[in-house]
Amino acid sequence: MSLIKGNAIIGQSGGPTAVINQSLVGVVETLQNVAEIPHIYGARHGTRGIIEENVVDLHGMPADRLEAIAGTPSAALGSTRDKPDAAYCEKIFATLQKLDVRYFFYIGGNDSSDTCRIVNELSNESGYELRCFHVPKTVDCDLMKSDHTPGFASAARYVAMAFAGDNLDNASIPGIKINVVMGRHAGFLTAAAALLRDKGRGDGPHLVYVPERPVSIDRIVADVDACYSKHGRCQIALSEGLKDESGQTIAEALIKGEKDAHGNVQLSGSGALGDNIAEMLKEKLKPQGGKSPRVRADTLGYAQRCFPDPSPVDQSEARQAGRAAATIAKAGDVDGSIAIVRKTSEEYAADFVRVELSDIAAKTRHMPDEFMDSDNDVSDTFVEWLRPLVGPMPSFGRL
Amino acid sequence: MSLIKGNAIIGQSGGPTAVINQSLVGVVETLQNVAEIPHIYGARHGTRGIIEENVVDLHGMPADRLEAIAGTPSAALGSTRDKPDAAYCEKIFATLQKLDVRYFFYIGGNDSSDTCRIVNELSNESGYELRCFHVPKTVDCDLMKSDHTPGFASAARYVAMAFAGDNLDNASIPGIKINVVMGRHAGFLTAAAALLRDKGRGDGPHLVYVPERPVSIDRIVADVDACYSKHGRCQIALSEGLKDESGQTIAEALIKGEKDAHGNVQLSGSGALGDNIAEMLKEKLKPQGGKSPRVRADTLGYAQRCFPDPSPVDQSEARQAGRAAATIAKAGDVDGSIAIVRKTSEEYAADFVRVELSDIAAKTRHMPDEFMDSDNDVSDTFVEWLRPLVGPMPSFGRL
Repeated sequence: MSLIKGNAIIGQSGGPTAVINQSLVGVVETLQNVAEIPHIYGARHGTRGIIEENVVDLHGMPADRLEAIAGTPSAALGSTRDKPDAAYCEKIFATLQKLDVRYFFYIGGNDSSDTCRIVNELSNESGYELRCFHVPKTVDCDLMKSDHTPGFASAARYVAMAFAGDNLDNASIPGIKINVVMGRHAGFLTAAAALLRDKGRGDGPHLVYVPERPVSIDRIVADVDACYSKHGRCQIALSEGLKDESGQTIAEALIKGEKDAHGNVQLSGSGALGDNIAEMLKEKLKPQGGKSPRVRADTLGYAQRCFPDPSPVDQSEARQAGRAAATIAKAGDVDGSIAIVRKTSEEYAADFVRVELSDIAAKTRHMPDEFMDSDNDVSDTFVEWLRPLVGPMPSFGRL
Repeated sequence: MSLIKGNAIIGQSGGPTAVINQSLVGVVETLQNVAEIPHIYGARHGTRGIIEENVVDLHGMPADRLEAIAGTPSAALGSTRDKPDAAYCEKIFATLQKLDVRYFFYIGGNDSSDTCRIVNELSNESGYELRCFHVPKTVDCDLMKSDHTPGFASAARYVAMAFAGDNLDNASIPGIKINVVMGRHAGFLTAAAALLRDKGRGDGPHLVYVPERPVSIDRIVADVDACYSKHGRCQIALSEGLKDESGQTIAEALIKGEKDAHGNVQLSGSGALGDNIAEMLKEKLKPQGGKSPRVRADTLGYAQRCFPDPSPVDQSEARQAGRAAATIAKAGDVDGSIAIVRKTSEEYAADFVRVELSDIAAKTRHMPDEFMDSDNDVSDTFVEWLRPLVGPMPSFGRL
């Protein structure tokens, strides 16, 4: 046995998901009752809790309490938007040594894996044995090496259900309807809008715009015009990170608003992008001397990441990702992240494998070409890929 | 038996709900296999379908198809925003006579009951026996004589779940979060935001603003400031129809946008109200020389009325409302609407009783005083009233 004596610490980072606590509990339950690990610290608000030594000991927490937390959306420990640089990571590493931490787990997206990578390098340089694991989490599904990421399937479930209901709503009172979906760099979540679509019935979304397929505003207008002429209505799935051909986001082109710590226009928690596109379409599609078509926009908002109706598959996989990280960390002096690799079996199944931090850190996965049918629609391949991940879905009867 | 020989017609009106098709099917199944009623016409897009004679015969539709439609959100027949005046109602009445209709059912809110009332008066004046029934439907819960309305509980279920997830999200990354909820004149749906709140844990919504309690913008700023100082965060449930002391809506005060056929500012399908309040709070709560607090706004949007996860109680009650209307219409020459009256039994139960059209038509019910605890919060009485209506809800574990 190569189990090293010392404490463990776990943090949660970035936008929460409906299943991020499953991963937390997956780590904790795997380290419980290990004599060599006396304390399992939970860092409050991610790396910020580490540098401020704001931690809670999760060791010995009863299984039923852990299970209740696992089933609860959002980050039970609190999250952070801090993006640690080298100096910040040195502070993290100093606290880890002070707390005699030998097992470091950070649940988050590609920024968080980069934090793990830097802290791991610091420990390697200093000769302090620290097992660093990134546990994947993002509704964007944009981590390298993974078929998909914990958190994505629950968000996709929400998006697919919201679009299906909204499509029926739009069919009953026809018009042009824009729904803005999360995803700054990758379109997986926006594409999920098409999951329950029955094309034979003329269902929306009729147009799906993702960051991987840059599009001009003129082209959007022309697409909507053609669809509205054909169907008498048009439901649009539009990614918040959609770009034009110059590489500028449509949001940047249309909005002058708050920018975040990374210099990006604020997209979440604002309806500005959808509203601006709606106004633009009203104006451009107004017949001469006529009345603008009925154009409405919803921005799906934070419900996408924390609506309390997660996918059971996602819950299970997020748990297994946490367990896999803790199991591997216990087994030997190794670091890494966990990737979900889909098996080729007929029934859906997945493996949870260790990958190098450097393969994930600060990198972004994009939708493969085969997931798109054209620049403004997803393929059946995508829908088949998504279906087993989201859990039971409603079906609809029509006249 | 006073069954009159002739056809039936059914229409659906206004903003759809997740259970409006239950009421449709409740009417249809009650009139099936009645020899005296050879045709059960469904009017496409409500009264518009009647005056354009755009109808579909629902007679003889198999039970399994009806059941599939009943379980599907939004108006299967299509809906309309038309608000018929006297001349329009004369056209409706002319078509009803032409189609030999003796049973007229219109599923909708208070505007729709007014259409029924006018058509009913026309039939009374002319001596043409027509049984006119309004079947209640509105997510706003604002019909007189009813404890609550079909469609409300499913919308309340969605709002409660969205707020609960969003509260956990806001706790993990603290800030000020505004969620705008549907309800132009009544605050029932906005109040539903508090259903899953555990006040002992500091849960949001921390502030609940409803149309029944006018409030100045300065007061909102002061309330949010006090809450943010106390909790380090603030989740706000704000009704789209919120008014200031002068009677002007906050939306009208802040937005210059599209107005609908009734001269109202467009509220649904736009994030403008939430975004404007967010910008205003950022500005007014900015400490001198400091950084604005993190303020975000979501507008819950059309998912409130058509998210495909309805309350089972609501489904059953919408069905029973349709059945009750059809049963009473068959039984004798009488007109009216159906009200849901809560029984005083310990276990939740309700009666479906006939009320006069004139008691409902074009009138608006408001939240009773006992449902509010103060001008910016709901009471436990409200929460107890709501709980049995929404179906099974998630529970949450915390650290």
